[in-house]
Amino acid sequence: MERPLPPRAILLTWVTAAVAAASTPSSALAEGRRWTLDDQLTVPELRAIAIAADGDSAAYVTRVADRATDKTVARLTLVDLKSGASRELLRADWIDQLRRIPGSKAWSALIDRGEGVQLYRIEADGQVVPIIVHPATVRFGEVDGWLLPGFAHAPLGVGVKAYSWSPDGRWLFYLVLDGIHPERGVQHDERVAELRGMRRPRGQATASFYLRAADGSTQLVATRPRSDLRTLASKGDVNWTATGFEYVLMDAEESGRQRKRTMAWSFAEKRSREMGSTVQIASWMLPGPRGGGLAAEGLGDRREIIETDGHGRRHSYGLFPFSVGHGAAFGGFRTTNGRRAIVNARTIEDARYGIAVIENRGLRTIWGEASLTKCDFTPTLDAGACIAEGQTKPPAIVKVDVDAGEVEPVASVSPQHEEIEALKVTPRSWINRYGHKATGYVVWPRDYDARARYPAIIVTHGTDADQRFAVQENQWEYPVQMLAERGYVVLLVNDPAPRQNAEIRDAYDAWTLQRAALAPEDMRKLLWLSGVASFEAAVEELAAEGIIDKERVGIAGYSRGSQMVNVAMTHSTMFRAASSGDGAYLEPVYEPDMPDSYHAVFGGSPFDPKFLPNYRALSPSLRAAEACGAILQQVAAPHTGAIDFYKALRAAGVPAQLSHFAGEDDSSDETHIFHIPSNRMAAMQENIAWFDYWLKGERDPASISASRYAEWDRMKRAAPTRCPVVKQPA
Amino acid sequence: MERPLPPRAILLTWVTAAVAAASTPSSALAEGRRWTLDDQLTVPELRAIAIAADGDSAAYVTRVADRATDKTVARLTLVDLKSGASRELLRADWIDQLRRIPGSKAWSALIDRGEGVQLYRIEADGQVVPIIVHPATVRFGEVDGWLLPGFAHAPLGVGVKAYSWSPDGRWLFYLVLDGIHPERGVQHDERVAELRGMRRPRGQATASFYLRAADGSTQLVATRPRSDLRTLASKGDVNWTATGFEYVLMDAEESGRQRKRTMAWSFAEKRSREMGSTVQIASWMLPGPRGGGLAAEGLGDRREIIETDGHGRRHSYGLFPFSVGHGAAFGGFRTTNGRRAIVNARTIEDARYGIAVIENRGLRTIWGEASLTKCDFTPTLDAGACIAEGQTKPPAIVKVDVDAGEVEPVASVSPQHEEIEALKVTPRSWINRYGHKATGYVVWPRDYDARARYPAIIVTHGTDADQRFAVQENQWEYPVQMLAERGYVVLLVNDPAPRQNAEIRDAYDAWTLQRAALAPEDMRKLLWLSGVASFEAAVEELAAEGIIDKERVGIAGYSRGSQMVNVAMTHSTMFRAASSGDGAYLEPVYEPDMPDSYHAVFGGSPFDPKFLPNYRALSPSLRAAEACGAILQQVAAPHTGAIDFYKALRAAGVPAQLSHFAGEDDSSDETHIFHIPSNRMAAMQENIAWFDYWLKGERDPASISASRYAEWDRMKRAAPTRCPVVKQPA
Repeated sequence: MERPLPPRAILLTWVTAAVAAASTPSSALAEGRRWTLDDQLTVPELRAIAIAADGDSAAYVTRVADRATDKTVARLTLVDLKSGASRELLRADWIDQLRRIPGSKAWSALIDRGEGVQLYRIEADGQVVPIIVHPATVRFGEVDGWLLPGFAHAPLGVGVKAYSWSPDGRWLFYLVLDGIHPERGVQHDERVAELRGMRRPRGQATASFYLRAADGSTQLVATRPRSDLRTLASKGDVNWTATGFEYVLMDAEESGRQRKRTMAWSFAEKRSREMGSTVQIASWMLPGPRGGGLAAEGLGDRREIIETDGHGRRHSYGLFPFSVGHGAAFGGFRTTNGRRAIVNARTIEDARYGIAVIENRGLRTIWGEASLTKCDFTPTLDAGACIAEGQTKPPAIVKVDVDAGEVEPVASVSPQHEEIEALKVTPRSWINRYGHKATGYVVWPRDYDARARYPAIIVTHGTDADQRFAVQENQWEYPVQMLAERGYVVLLVNDPAPRQNAEIRDAYDAWTLQRAALAPEDMRKLLWLSGVASFEAAVEELAAEGIIDKERVGIAGYSRGSQMVNVAMTHSTMFRAASSGDGAYLEPVYEPDMPDSYHAVFGGSPFDPKFLPNYRALSPSLRAAEACGAILQQVAAPHTGAIDFYKALRAAGVPAQLSHFAGEDDSSDETHIFHIPSNRMAAMQENIAWFDYWLKGERDPASISASRYAEWDRMKRAAPTRCPVVKQPA
Repeated sequence: MERPLPPRAILLTWVTAAVAAASTPSSALAEGRRWTLDDQLTVPELRAIAIAADGDSAAYVTRVADRATDKTVARLTLVDLKSGASRELLRADWIDQLRRIPGSKAWSALIDRGEGVQLYRIEADGQVVPIIVHPATVRFGEVDGWLLPGFAHAPLGVGVKAYSWSPDGRWLFYLVLDGIHPERGVQHDERVAELRGMRRPRGQATASFYLRAADGSTQLVATRPRSDLRTLASKGDVNWTATGFEYVLMDAEESGRQRKRTMAWSFAEKRSREMGSTVQIASWMLPGPRGGGLAAEGLGDRREIIETDGHGRRHSYGLFPFSVGHGAAFGGFRTTNGRRAIVNARTIEDARYGIAVIENRGLRTIWGEASLTKCDFTPTLDAGACIAEGQTKPPAIVKVDVDAGEVEPVASVSPQHEEIEALKVTPRSWINRYGHKATGYVVWPRDYDARARYPAIIVTHGTDADQRFAVQENQWEYPVQMLAERGYVVLLVNDPAPRQNAEIRDAYDAWTLQRAALAPEDMRKLLWLSGVASFEAAVEELAAEGIIDKERVGIAGYSRGSQMVNVAMTHSTMFRAASSGDGAYLEPVYEPDMPDSYHAVFGGSPFDPKFLPNYRALSPSLRAAEACGAILQQVAAPHTGAIDFYKALRAAGVPAQLSHFAGEDDSSDETHIFHIPSNRMAAMQENIAWFDYWLKGERDPASISASRYAEWDRMKRAAPTRCPVVKQPA
């Protein structure tokens, strides 16, 4: 199971290479190679890192596509923070909740080694020993009988869901799940109605908390029903105290809302009592040194970092050009004596991740050469280990001296990606015609020639185009780097920043809280049309600079990005081709599944003549006849809304393709973020073929889409004459 | 496997009992017992009968719910047509295509004995021998990977799909199916879009025709793709000739339409050639003695029976008060010398089934005491055996002397149902305010007392309330006879007869052909509102006669009946409670799945402001706020349209329940006509509880719905005040 990685000395070239790539034309570095599709596929997902208590070593978890088994596999690697020597300890279908075991040199993690997800102890020598193994009778994922939906993973059987060690290592708190055999027979009302928006039927289960003492004796703490969604989603977020621990339950009320109950278990009494529903427990927020929770407030280019204690008292640490507590990075830490707290920090523009150290004297930051996206610290918060990455910087392990505020490279995470000569990537921002600013990046074609005009593709997905390395969650199966290798200017464009002003923030708040607080025309403008205007501003700017050819511009995005792509294609005539990934929010068919959300956006039902005009002004399928470019939809399941858009486009004569990527078997689906390597390759190849065909007029007989060209030709010939003809290069 | 039935002498009491029941108050017959729910459940479905060539015996197939195994099981029974002695030869999950084997005393049938549906020979002593066993790699039913959808049966594995013996018994033509392993990976366009309206993904297969000679040598005739839907649905409809046989293929054209090809196989050449696409083969129509096809034409109370030959020449046999070739009864027969043909006949009002004998001299009919619903005849068409039944006549076997035109009872099919004292059932018809006539039956409460006014329930399902015995296909899980036992007047009401005039016929034609030929307001009136007006006319009439209490009227229907129930409940305030079964046609969500059908009814898309008013005038969910009675929907799958109606009713404060009856497992569903006995019992019990509660104010602590009363109470209290209060008996 152990696979040695090259020693530190060889790998540290990444730092200089990456820095050089960002400042000089990359063609100057003759030693690197070009991106391949395999490189796109095998960019590691950075899951977690855990540092040893003595700060000498760290273990980290990545997930990487494995083409041989056609699975995304998890890897646990141990790195010596002094020498940089790395050893792969374990490969498994799933590794999660990696933690050091207090008072030992060993690690613990939830691992699926073939008997479902269970709790194991991993020795530094790679030996794996079960701690808790519970029959895995429930499933997580996009699968029949799911308990929680999948997030980029194959269907998982789960026995142990979560755990927590007491700081002294004497107590183990853990949560196991027991599937309830699905009832046959009759179901009523909401149990039936919820299936409307649900492709896979849900399973039933109970969740049980246990506490194991040092002597091995085990006590049942509580058994919770499926309706306690907080418990089902728990990662073991327990607040250990001197006399026991605190934890939170949720009770489903008749209205469907959840009521929170904070409980305290007493070691002495061997039972829990309720602490009251308003009690905040610091460990589940970003803990500040004052015992409160940290948050970043405000609008514009600066954020005020504020600590609020359990009584609502607020302490401001000042205004900073960054926010704290971003969900994409590591969480928060606090020493037991309260002298120091650490949370992640993320800059507002050209966003990179760093470390905010908060002490009574104030807040300071530690930034590395790259973004520090996953970090862990010793109990004293003196030393840390992080996974570092950037737009042109493949992931690597770094160590952090918190007192000195220093970051030192240790080892590469992915030698394969070190071999690639970095592309040139430059941050930019654009002001659109509404005066709203959107940030992003220009990924330049390999061997960019300023005398040529290039075709361009916008890739968009909300707000996560930032200083990380080719992240699947941002760029999905749009192979941004390969597209740049193939001569496209790729623009990674974020939504207009939601917190740049009160108007946009209010629109997001209304949307998130599902309140019809703004007029539908304002929601439409602030949440969708302003983004489209940003895309247009970016294209106009690069065209005006002579960089791109306005006649050959495409757009791609999944999820939130699919909304933007579908709206862009039915409001703007700027884009000749589009790829829209696994999303169909805004389609009227979903209104009954999420009436509050839709009413916040549209005002009411599409069948109410008062509100129908709002749908006709925004829902992509109702504006299909406005579309002027070829639209590919790639979906992880046959979503009704995506089918409606496809059918409406075809009915309007607009070139359209709907591609469904199947799951492992008939009882499961591909996930929203794809996890099946062959699907990922096929989707990336299809995107390349689609844009090459519609933007560059190129066809490749060896392409996965070669059998589709006849249909694409037919659609091109039949396309509406009202639309500009696609410019065909010789 | 053999279960002796009581001898004929005992059973023939059914004839006199049934006749008596129809003419005198049934309470006069003290010896019978009352209906039970078990009686409702175990009414046998009459599948087929096959008479021996010598006319001495017949085998017949029924399907009956078996509570012990919770399956609907098929039974093959052999009856001696002279003595009436019956023996059950076989019980299996499925028995179909029962035929005599020419030149032998044995029978053949497609049977599922645990290895999928295969072809077997059944000797008169009950011995079962395989003829063709092919690996059953395809599934039929409401099941993942289905090849054809299910019709009231559990998922079936099918090896042999169809077969036919040559008249001399020397040749066996048969059709086997081979599943194609479902493709994983990417699917495009229509393959994805078709999943919108499809809960279970479809499987792929090929179908192969074979011909086996008397010496056992076997020849492949053709292998057909899945797109040849005619072949997939084949029952072995081959036309044997002296030199070979003729059969029909369908080729799917690019437009999606199917093109017919008629083929002729030559025994001598051992290959097929195409006969031309316009050739009609008599055996697939109702064959007439002149070698043409028979049909009943015309409107009103009489039909003209016409034979049309392959050249379009028409011969009229005259005007008759019946039609021929009804799909619910047996098909057509013709002697090889063409001297005689036989088809089923069905009267226009108080519809009963009989036999039309057509000879060169003209057409004559044979009617029994009851309807003759399934019949078979000896090769000369001199003698026949039928299954006979009526509204108050449990099924029995009769024999037919065709020359004499006589029908003679032979044996009971269901002794259990002979024990029941028949309810009084009287045919009626009603003219509604549009001048349209609807036929039906009044099922009287047990011990009817003319001084009392009774609660009433209309049960409706298109046009099949006729002289048959408690047919599930008509009354579904509405236990009509039990409701009458419980003191309801039950009205079985058909749609206004589609062929009573040209206006209604044209509306049905436009609907069936999916052509927007009539204005949406005319379609609405002729296909739905006229039916509602008929229900109202029936209620008014019986209320005016002092029979029923207008304040306690309910309505129930499934499928076509569910449309009528949902429209009735959102247009009329006459009904206090409704049960709507497994249908949601007319809901706007299905427009993209069947645009032609919806455009024929509504004119266009619901999102077109021009057509939205047509939806708001008819789609039940858009009229939920008009509803005044409690609406139960019972569904075999969580249909989106049914969920939309449920949600709209709840949002409008209208008492509503949605009950879903699950399939055998997560990969399959209950069928449109239920086949799982426990579901059938639960649905019937729920319907009784629902009507007892909402119409009579009764609650039964032992009811399956007892745990629902609190919710029903809550809904009743919250019901809209605009609606009349339900009258509560003390």
